Amino acid sequence: MACITLMTDFGNRDDSAGCCRGVIVGRAPDARLVDITHEIPPFDVRRGALTWINVLPYMPVGIHVGVVDPGVGTARRPIAVRTRRGDVLVGPDNGLLPAAAAALGGVSDAVELADERFMLRPRSNTFHGRDIFAPMAAALATGTALGDLGPALDPVTLVTLDLPRPRWDGAVLHCAVVYVDNFGNLRLNAGEDVVSRWGLHEGDVVGVTLGGHRLSVPFARSFGMVPEGTAALIVDAYWHLMLAINRGHAAVTYGVGIDAPVVLRRGAGGAKEAE
Amino acid sequence: MACITLMTDFGNRDDSAGCCRGVIVGRAPDARLVDITHEIPPFDVRRGALTWINVLPYMPVGIHVGVVDPGVGTARRPIAVRTRRGDVLVGPDNGLLPAAAAALGGVSDAVELADERFMLRPRSNTFHGRDIFAPMAAALATGTALGDLGPALDPVTLVTLDLPRPRWDGAVLHCAVVYVDNFGNLRLNAGEDVVSRWGLHEGDVVGVTLGGHRLSVPFARSFGMVPEGTAALIVDAYWHLMLAINRGHAAVTYGVGIDAPVVLRRGAGGAKEAE
Amino acid sequence: MACITLMTDFGNRDDSAGCCRGVIVGRAPDARLVDITHEIPPFDVRRGALTWINVLPYMPVGIHVGVVDPGVGTARRPIAVRTRRGDVLVGPDNGLLPAAAAALGGVSDAVELADERFMLRPRSNTFHGRDIFAPMAAALATGTALGDLGPALDPVTLVTLDLPRPRWDGAVLHCAVVYVDNFGNLRLNAGEDVVSRWGLHEGDVVGVTLGGHRLSVPFARSFGMVPEGTAALIVDAYWHLMLAINRGHAAVTYGVGIDAPVVLRRGAGGAKEAE
Repeated sequence: MACITLMTDFGNRDDSAGCCRGVIVGRAPDARLVDITHEIPPFDVRRGALTWINVLPYMPVGIHVGVVDPGVGTARRPIAVRTRRGDVLVGPDNGLLPAAAAALGGVSDAVELADERFMLRPRSNTFHGRDIFAPMAAALATGTALGDLGPALDPVTLVTLDLPRPRWDGAVLHCAVVYVDNFGNLRLNAGEDVVSRWGLHEGDVVGVTLGGHRLSVPFARSFGMVPEGTAALIVDAYWHLMLAINRGHAAVTYGVGIDAPVVLRRGAGGAKEAE
Repeated sequence: MACITLMTDFGNRDDSAGCCRGVIVGRAPDARLVDITHEIPPFDVRRGALTWINVLPYMPVGIHVGVVDPGVGTARRPIAVRTRRGDVLVGPDNGLLPAAAAALGGVSDAVELADERFMLRPRSNTFHGRDIFAPMAAALATGTALGDLGPALDPVTLVTLDLPRPRWDGAVLHCAVVYVDNFGNLRLNAGEDVVSRWGLHEGDVVGVTLGGHRLSVPFARSFGMVPEGTAALIVDAYWHLMLAINRGHAAVTYGVGIDAPVVLRRGAGGAKEAE
Repeated sequence: MACITLMTDFGNRDDSAGCCRGVIVGRAPDARLVDITHEIPPFDVRRGALTWINVLPYMPVGIHVGVVDPGVGTARRPIAVRTRRGDVLVGPDNGLLPAAAAALGGVSDAVELADERFMLRPRSNTFHGRDIFAPMAAALATGTALGDLGPALDPVTLVTLDLPRPRWDGAVLHCAVVYVDNFGNLRLNAGEDVVSRWGLHEGDVVGVTLGGHRLSVPFARSFGMVPEGTAALIVDAYWHLMLAINRGHAAVTYGVGIDAPVVLRRGAGGAKEAE
């Protein structure tokens, strides 16, 4: 039984997600349909990519439809890419797919979704989720080969996404908030390599500058290891650094959000590194 | 395998949608259960009807439960109607069902959901979604005939909904916003017939008056065809006119919402029609 | 086919619910997965318990995963309890499970979720929903015995939750708002026993003091039985007293929310009881 997942920026309030579900259920009645989320902020391709990067490795190998598509109705191509893990990602050629494919072993091959036999008729200019991506996913789930959906594309021609990278300045790390989660935790664009490079150990103190605040926070195993209302720097569930306040809301407390710069210095206030 | 869909104004936060899912899954374990949305604004029967009208044609023929039910616990009847397409719509007799049935070929027959054998016991006075509509849908999905659920109703006795219609005044169209989507696009109550009547072509300019603003906007194939931040009048994915701002939020920009009057005039500023 | 339900405070916007769904779908492909809600307010264990208490009796007997887990990564135990109805509840040992189990006949036995064979590897310190609870539920759904997941626990050692109880002062009932629903209705912590004790009948007037307001409201069969905009005290769908305004929003109108004290007196203004 094929598994089709859905991630969009349609919102849970609108009719759009329901339409996509309907097309898939109608055309691939034996497929398993799993929603990832429909609450990607409108047009936020990067948030879509980060969400897919975090979720898809925990999904079974399957067909994953991602629609964060500000360019719908323009010349941007509808595409599908196969990952080395065996998944097929379906969506617009705006960077969403290759970023996520990298978390699944990389792109092995790609096609442009061009064969109108697998699209709805009539087809709108503004809702390719329903009219192209959903029926193409259903076609894949019911046995159509990827190569039958349209002409092969050279993966190097796909639009890619620049995910922000941290920058070292000596022992000081300049990073950024890339995701604020439901609890207000601030996820940073710094992976476990930072922990390795620094040789951070539980209880080490890190100087953190963000949003005009200058903090000294412990590196902890979990936010639950510091007192309530206290900040901690931890390795989050996706193996990146996160600044959290135990039972608090760090984004509100520090008045920062996506793209806020965050400077990390080893040692309280960063004195150790600043010397 | 029968398909049961759910659309309600219960919200995703409450316990209500989960209860309905539980009743259906428990009583019709082989049915496929698909959520349309639970975020219809409270009591907004018209929004429920518009959502069903847009989504149900993309759903497979099935059993569709709609609960937007401000009159629960009063004398309003619980009903089910069969559509000419073969679906059964289940919900309160407040206009929701006939409006949607019209998008599925019309009502072929209707019953009052009266047989207590198919209701939960005990039965509350305020949650017929759980106690009447969900178990009745499960009964249908497991082979109970529509006529066994209660006495036949003459479809002409069903409560109907007045969906707002546009009005022509010469070449000027007086319409209204009937739906603001997740992206802030303003969907109007003017269908493709307006495009036909006017013979609008891509690039034609239409004068738009709304919320104290007087705009000249192009009729475009997609919002993506105009520069970012620019408004366009397009045919939306449900074949109605929509006023959108490319990568913007028209509802916020123009300060308008549901029921806002919108006047459309052919030609920039409407000069052509005003003569 | 086993049924696994999910209730969390992850929100519908984040990646977390999708990860849990993925783990379950991947490891228990034949199980039926049903979402209850992911919009429990962050850390609100009591709201989680009330939601489970209201929903689970309407779910088929199954495996129910509940993650409202402010103590994740601390010494709080991951547990599973079997109910006398035959369900297994899976989640943190913070009071969530026993409160809900009571609505399903009580706890028959309990285990600590300790066997790492049934956890994901690597395992994070902050996302036990994905790494422990979801795969343990999948293990149960695919035939693993509860006792194989870890050592038995004496149910009396489980953390319990103090749900607020109403207090009688003569004929006056001091209760509290414990849940504000999607429509703004105020659910009180007073069950049908209050109705029995008072012998309330439809149309009886009850004095209600809340949020600085002093009201006289009828005890009605449904909010729909009083005029629009009028308050009524009713028995809600979970057999507790609720203060509602017909087609209005009681929480906004009276400016109260969770934990607001509410005093109920028999008779208009409470005169009858105050003597």
